Amino acid sequence: MERHFVRDLEELKERLLWMGSLAERAVQQSVQAILDGDERLARNVVEEEDAINDMQIEIDDRVMQLLALHQLMAVDLRFVLAVARINADLERIADQAVNIAESAQRILRHPRVKPYVDLPRMGRLAQEMVRDSLTAVVNKDVELARSVLTRDDQVDGLRDQVFRELLTYMMENSSLVFPAFDLILVAKNLERIADHSTNIAEDVIYMVAGRDVRHHGAASTDRR
Amino acid sequence: MERHFVRDLEELKERLLWMGSLAERAVQQSVQAILDGDERLARNVVEEEDAINDMQIEIDDRVMQLLALHQLMAVDLRFVLAVARINADLERIADQAVNIAESAQRILRHPRVKPYVDLPRMGRLAQEMVRDSLTAVVNKDVELARSVLTRDDQVDGLRDQVFRELLTYMMENSSLVFPAFDLILVAKNLERIADHSTNIAEDVIYMVAGRDVRHHGAASTDRR
Repeated sequence: MERHFVRDLEELKERLLWMGSLAERAVQQSVQAILDGDERLARNVVEEEDAINDMQIEIDDRVMQLLALHQLMAVDLRFVLAVARINADLERIADQAVNIAESAQRILRHPRVKPYVDLPRMGRLAQEMVRDSLTAVVNKDVELARSVLTRDDQVDGLRDQVFRELLTYMMENSSLVFPAFDLILVAKNLERIADHSTNIAEDVIYMVAGRDVRHHGAASTDRR
Repeated sequence: MERHFVRDLEELKERLLWMGSLAERAVQQSVQAILDGDERLARNVVEEEDAINDMQIEIDDRVMQLLALHQLMAVDLRFVLAVARINADLERIADQAVNIAESAQRILRHPRVKPYVDLPRMGRLAQEMVRDSLTAVVNKDVELARSVLTRDDQVDGLRDQVFRELLTYMMENSSLVFPAFDLILVAKNLERIADHSTNIAEDVIYMVAGRDVRHHGAASTDRR
């Protein structure tokens, strides 16, 4: 029984990490599709969505099974509940990547609005936050998790820069309103990806330190 | 022990409903602030945020306690896990209401962009979805939950209308770019409120029927 439980827990962790790597790749490819003007990459992200959704349901089923079969100690219970939440955040990260890929498909039909400067930076930062939050889960690394929390403000700062710049373009040249608007949506999607990574990092801290840091981090000031 | 458990479960449900009514009121007031130009209402929503965040943490603690103290049967386990997810969705609904209230404060500094037609309709629809998804939780009403799922498409349709209209205004009159952009953000916030209500409705179906309807409803086609 004990052995069984350890194995179940290990498998749960492995599936979560696999889910994480799918979500991370979706983010990477969706941003790359815009930067490289690669329609095929965008389509790829959209097509992978079903596999990620199936994985989310599978992981939730495993959580349910674990809780139904074993009376968990507090530390394991915290871990399993955190897995359920991280699972939901990863699925939403993948959702946002699909949104970016769909925007990419529309954006690629127009001439390029401007040389992208802040958007690639924002994309890189968001991707790193996804990766580091997952690494923090694996290694139960509270320090790394905290560094994810602090980066959320940088993403919000870049988002405001991207907004201001694109709105200025829209004011100067009304033919740019539609493609620029899609780039604004992409910036909002990246911001939400960063938010979900922040949630994951908060869950790592909760899991390891048993402290609930939600609503008290540097990250809680802006949810727009 | 058995008695204890029933009481704990009942209290958990009551707290969740209280949390739901706070979230619902925040949505209602934030939209009303824009429609009536009422700055005080907007400020009220922002000030209530802390109380809602505290409530979220309290409910999560109760979930944790329940799972730690009792070995639950499948049906109760499904309920408790659904409560944890609904709790997170309600907190995010309140977050979106705060975003709307913050946009309201900026919007009210400008002359009115246009007579609002679709935005109030979208606001009403989103509020009804929040309320009905909660009523569905209380009454374990699968039919009502399904009706919430179908309304998500209407909200997405209204959002696209609001987007198109405001983008057209921006093209015609560049001085409107900034306030119109804030109204676009509000439409996006309302869309996300509808999405979270949809999540809650899906959880009701999962809770009652034991069927996972995520990613298979009419609602899963658009997450932008």
